[in-house]
Amino acid sequence: MNQTVAVVLSGCGVYDGSEITEAVGVVIALSQAGLRYTFYAPDRAQMHVVDHAHGQESSETRNILSEAARIARGEIRPLAELDAAQHCAIVFPGGFGAAKNLTTFVKDGADAVLYDDVRAAVRPFVQQQKPVVALCAAPLVQGLIARDEGLSGVRITFGSYAEGQTMAAALASWGQSHVETPVDQACVDVAHRFVSAPAYMYGAATPAEVFASCQAAVAALKSLLS
Amino acid sequence: MNQTVAVVLSGCGVYDGSEITEAVGVVIALSQAGLRYTFYAPDRAQMHVVDHAHGQESSETRNILSEAARIARGEIRPLAELDAAQHCAIVFPGGFGAAKNLTTFVKDGADAVLYDDVRAAVRPFVQQQKPVVALCAAPLVQGLIARDEGLSGVRITFGSYAEGQTMAAALASWGQSHVETPVDQACVDVAHRFVSAPAYMYGAATPAEVFASCQAAVAALKSLLS
Repeated sequence: MNQTVAVVLSGCGVYDGSEITEAVGVVIALSQAGLRYTFYAPDRAQMHVVDHAHGQESSETRNILSEAARIARGEIRPLAELDAAQHCAIVFPGGFGAAKNLTTFVKDGADAVLYDDVRAAVRPFVQQQKPVVALCAAPLVQGLIARDEGLSGVRITFGSYAEGQTMAAALASWGQSHVETPVDQACVDVAHRFVSAPAYMYGAATPAEVFASCQAAVAALKSLLS
Repeated sequence: MNQTVAVVLSGCGVYDGSEITEAVGVVIALSQAGLRYTFYAPDRAQMHVVDHAHGQESSETRNILSEAARIARGEIRPLAELDAAQHCAIVFPGGFGAAKNLTTFVKDGADAVLYDDVRAAVRPFVQQQKPVVALCAAPLVQGLIARDEGLSGVRITFGSYAEGQTMAAALASWGQSHVETPVDQACVDVAHRFVSAPAYMYGAATPAEVFASCQAAVAALKSLLS
């Protein structure tokens, strides 16, 4: 418990980066639980930029690390510098950034892969049995690293089948198991030390419910660390 | 209590817009308290854009509304459309955006003014004795509207004198009273129906403490509304 948790962001904003309520919610929950953390993000261009007021793709280019630093108040490091030996767990908040900037899921669907820097960052946690936590759409990272490491039947949630159908189907094709989970609970695979929670996978969730999802994930993480 | 709270954002990121933990924290607290809310932001350019990873001003231009929409998940309206008759209270999260995009404080110090759209939005709340809530640096808006409406001695906090010295001094020059307040409490001027809370005015505050600040402000607001 004297190591910090690595929190990996994918930008700043639900439609092209990290979902902000989830990123902040998980950090408040970590802070309330007495767990220290360090932010990381890939130091490369976002897949694209979406004007969140008008729902339109913009012609801008933005750097994932620079945008994620808005959530982190400047205290963030390039993902390539993440050393698993310095951390007790790794956490991925959700948002489309998980499907656009951490994995190629938006482009490739069930044929998606992890970006190389993401695979390099998360693999040692899986190999060393350190907890891997993910919210909302970010369990895509869990499903892909489980597949890539030859695991099968790992229990992971995208909320309900109705809300997470495309991702749950892909997860099954990668050999893992989707588990329906209410918004205020976490899905815990104790054997594999994977924690996932739905948060805004339930599109009608309130901020209080999303925060409850974050708290459930952090409580499960703390239990695995104790 | 059947009206919603207006939450006014000034961008997305502490150094050129709304402080993200405060914006999310106050919305989680409103949601936990059963208070509905609507987001607003000025539909004009930010004063400037800061790369939060490297602490440098960038040559980009960004629109306050489009950036604030990242926090609001797209559900946000231009500040010019804010009709006080539809709202029971108005809330301003902090961040340098309050000093750069809502007021001219960063440019003008104690000679600062409210931007016209901000003054037009907040004035009816003061005139109709509806609560005005502000966090961190955003009580600048409270101090300026109090001055502009001819009020004096309104009790407002920027945390401690040590942390908020420049703003507390300006507040005094505007005829209002600075009240030292711990991070997990709110400063409430019951007569004027102003609520302020320090949040990240304490630079070393943890996310849990900032969230406690948000909850204290919302509890005070709820008390004023009951």
